Amino acid sequence: MKYCPNCGSKVTCRVPDGDSRMRCVCDDCGQVHYENPKIVVGCVPEHEGRILLCKRAIEPRRGYWTVPAGFMELGESLAEGAARETREEACAEVQMGHLFASVDVIEAGQVHFFFKARLIGGFGAGEETLEAALFRKEDIPWREIAFLSGTFALQKFVEDAGEDNGVHMHRVPHGE
Amino acid sequence: MKYCPNCGSKVTCRVPDGDSRMRCVCDDCGQVHYENPKIVVGCVPEHEGRILLCKRAIEPRRGYWTVPAGFMELGESLAEGAARETREEACAEVQMGHLFASVDVIEAGQVHFFFKARLIGGFGAGEETLEAALFRKEDIPWREIAFLSGTFALQKFVEDAGEDNGVHMHRVPHGE
Repeated sequence: MKYCPNCGSKVTCRVPDGDSRMRCVCDDCGQVHYENPKIVVGCVPEHEGRILLCKRAIEPRRGYWTVPAGFMELGESLAEGAARETREEACAEVQMGHLFASVDVIEAGQVHFFFKARLIGGFGAGEETLEAALFRKEDIPWREIAFLSGTFALQKFVEDAGEDNGVHMHRVPHGE
Repeated sequence: MKYCPNCGSKVTCRVPDGDSRMRCVCDDCGQVHYENPKIVVGCVPEHEGRILLCKRAIEPRRGYWTVPAGFMELGESLAEGAARETREEACAEVQMGHLFASVDVIEAGQVHFFFKARLIGGFGAGEETLEAALFRKEDIPWREIAFLSGTFALQKFVEDAGEDNGVHMHRVPHGE
């Protein structure tokens, strides 16, 4: 951030009074601009023992497979965000189950949350998807999964084997 | 947002190409500015069957009790954020347990996450706290809890009675 979104003046980067962290501060209008981690929400949609994955049509990781997931938007709940992303990427409706994985991706300033879900009806390729397909657990293309958080979610989904073992937590190491 | 944080020009609010939502867009430098929900992280620190609460010294809800919680910062994990908030608000170190509650506060554009935790050593009142104190479960001041998400977390914490029942999910209704 270089300019104040509120008044358009140049911002300076300093630790505000009563704070302990560097922030972008506007000395003209006095506003402190906080930057916080973003939420990515997704789900693992299952149908008769098979899992729905999407081959990405966009960068990063074009051509790699992912579970339906994306940035949570204002105005929706975590579960609604995961359902919307599934609709957008896989043209699919799901019955959302419980939250089962949380992954800190500190370097990217993100936390990724994954729900278990049950596929309802058909599916297809959304605008950001080259192809959507159902995989048996033994056929998951582990070496072609787009993101480490998705790999973690899929591993835990397979390990859970339908049981509810609470939320599996993970942290993506720096540089990966 | 009125001005572009990147170049200082006035932004316009419209649906960008390939998007389906209104965004603040800069027609000069082309940047699209996304606004996303923020994460609040906290914990319920327990010590010999009693729960550590903080009486807020700041608005909103000055004088009301809360579990230690606050906005997650860049550069930390969910659990690290909850530990930092506990250090800041209650001058306390905790051993972080598992994530047990998630609350969508859609109107505020926030998601609140709560961990179970075990208090290690002493505690006190941080700068934003008037007083920190341990409460037996039967003495929790339910009518003086600052926020509905904290009330939900405390209720589920008490109901769980030490068991791990996964993540309890809740949505704060509009207008509350």
